[in-house]
Amino acid sequence: MKKIVIFGVGLIGGSVALALKKAGSAAQIIGVGRSTESLQSAVDLGVIDAACSDITQAVQNADIVLIAAPVAQTASILTAIKPALAATTVITDAGSTKSDVLACAKEILGEQFNQFVGGHPIAGAEKSGVTAATTDLYRNKNVVLTPTDATDPDAIQRVRELWQHCGANVTEMPATTHDSIFAAVSHLPHLLAFALVDDIASRKNAEQLFGFAASGFRDFTRIAGSHPEMWRDISLANRSALLNEITAYQDELSRLKQMLELSDGDALHALFDRASTARNNWAKLKEQ
Amino acid sequence: MKKIVIFGVGLIGGSVALALKKAGSAAQIIGVGRSTESLQSAVDLGVIDAACSDITQAVQNADIVLIAAPVAQTASILTAIKPALAATTVITDAGSTKSDVLACAKEILGEQFNQFVGGHPIAGAEKSGVTAATTDLYRNKNVVLTPTDATDPDAIQRVRELWQHCGANVTEMPATTHDSIFAAVSHLPHLLAFALVDDIASRKNAEQLFGFAASGFRDFTRIAGSHPEMWRDISLANRSALLNEITAYQDELSRLKQMLELSDGDALHALFDRASTARNNWAKLKEQ
Repeated sequence: MKKIVIFGVGLIGGSVALALKKAGSAAQIIGVGRSTESLQSAVDLGVIDAACSDITQAVQNADIVLIAAPVAQTASILTAIKPALAATTVITDAGSTKSDVLACAKEILGEQFNQFVGGHPIAGAEKSGVTAATTDLYRNKNVVLTPTDATDPDAIQRVRELWQHCGANVTEMPATTHDSIFAAVSHLPHLLAFALVDDIASRKNAEQLFGFAASGFRDFTRIAGSHPEMWRDISLANRSALLNEITAYQDELSRLKQMLELSDGDALHALFDRASTARNNWAKLKEQ
Repeated sequence: MKKIVIFGVGLIGGSVALALKKAGSAAQIIGVGRSTESLQSAVDLGVIDAACSDITQAVQNADIVLIAAPVAQTASILTAIKPALAATTVITDAGSTKSDVLACAKEILGEQFNQFVGGHPIAGAEKSGVTAATTDLYRNKNVVLTPTDATDPDAIQRVRELWQHCGANVTEMPATTHDSIFAAVSHLPHLLAFALVDDIASRKNAEQLFGFAASGFRDFTRIAGSHPEMWRDISLANRSALLNEITAYQDELSRLKQMLELSDGDALHALFDRASTARNNWAKLKEQ
């Protein structure tokens, strides 16, 4: 690939740039962003080859345009690049939800929607910003691509190779499947953690409660420290799948509550045992 | 203190023994337990001075008897030591719930209930067994004591000093306050994590879901890997406070769900913002 353009050179976009440079698989990496200062810092750190403020010029002759900016900017970025988009340029993104991004891309790109491949790298985002970017953020991590029937097979292949050069394991699935999976294993846990901390923080004796919270609480609530804006956007973007997950969880919690109301030790033990076995098996598998 | 007797020399009891030895604050530490093998291992590791299978002999002239065995054994241990209990011996425990332990001690010890001080060291239990015991498990950790109006002030003072010699910060509060606090910041999070993993594990596509679960899921569900028996016992022992917490959490989750149903981004943002601010402030305070 001769030219990669990255919109949003933070942890996600910056780590792609670093990994591609290390793999020697991109001749030129151009960064585009809203903050001149942060882009200059990406150039200074050697993460990107150049920053570009002229979008038409940036996108010209690009092999791949990767949108790694906050998802709320996706529509305006697609609108801005559309007039300059060559038929040979592939566009992809790194957002946490996919059905909404595909709908947006379809509407804005029109006939060029076949050049768009939705993507979601599953990599930690505890830190943010280009200074946190690393060459190995995606090594052995999952990346999900959500092509549609309309997507150009060559475009899919090019995005697949981009992530494989970053060391990732690439899987393809429909956007709705992606959104259901991540509603269950990521979005719901975030909302549950936010809800617990908000519930405790609103109590009169919040200070006392927090004072006795220990390591179990620390780990359970770590994701409640995440960015409020980002999680508002993800919640709204994946609203329908997330509402299904909340309902399923409410049912599970009601069943557990009933076991406790009935002092049904056997049922509680069976539930805890299923959960701890599944959790510990999962952890063993992940460690391999 | 001349003689300390510890029932259950695992992570909790063993770490008390090691810390007291290091502080030079106990002349003799005797271990009592159901497994001869595990007690012998505690002797071999230098955690206790001697193992004793004769309870009457073990308890004789003891300054403090610490019950650090699984809570389900507390009643039978109290019943066994009662006939041998001198008026000068203080009894304490290390269970995660306190109202139930006090009720049990009151019933079994009768007039000698004034010699009993309920205790709960708030220290991690990811590992278990005497081989995991360390001298500094309780350093700067909280220990809650739950004396009643009937408790002998000297007994409280002696137990307080025991934990202070282990490096812990000792707080006193009524057992019901203790149980409410830990229902909120420990027992509820455990049940919520068990419920999430059980819900996911029961799905047809569980393998696929677990396959895409990442670091947020890992931390949120770590406590779902806990011992099923221990959590059945804790849930039943703290049933009433825990039911209140589940109800409060269900209400909070219903409010959050409604915000999402209404696509109320401002309300979602406000809730996530309150939670993330509280969580991050708590983490900063704990790091100090």
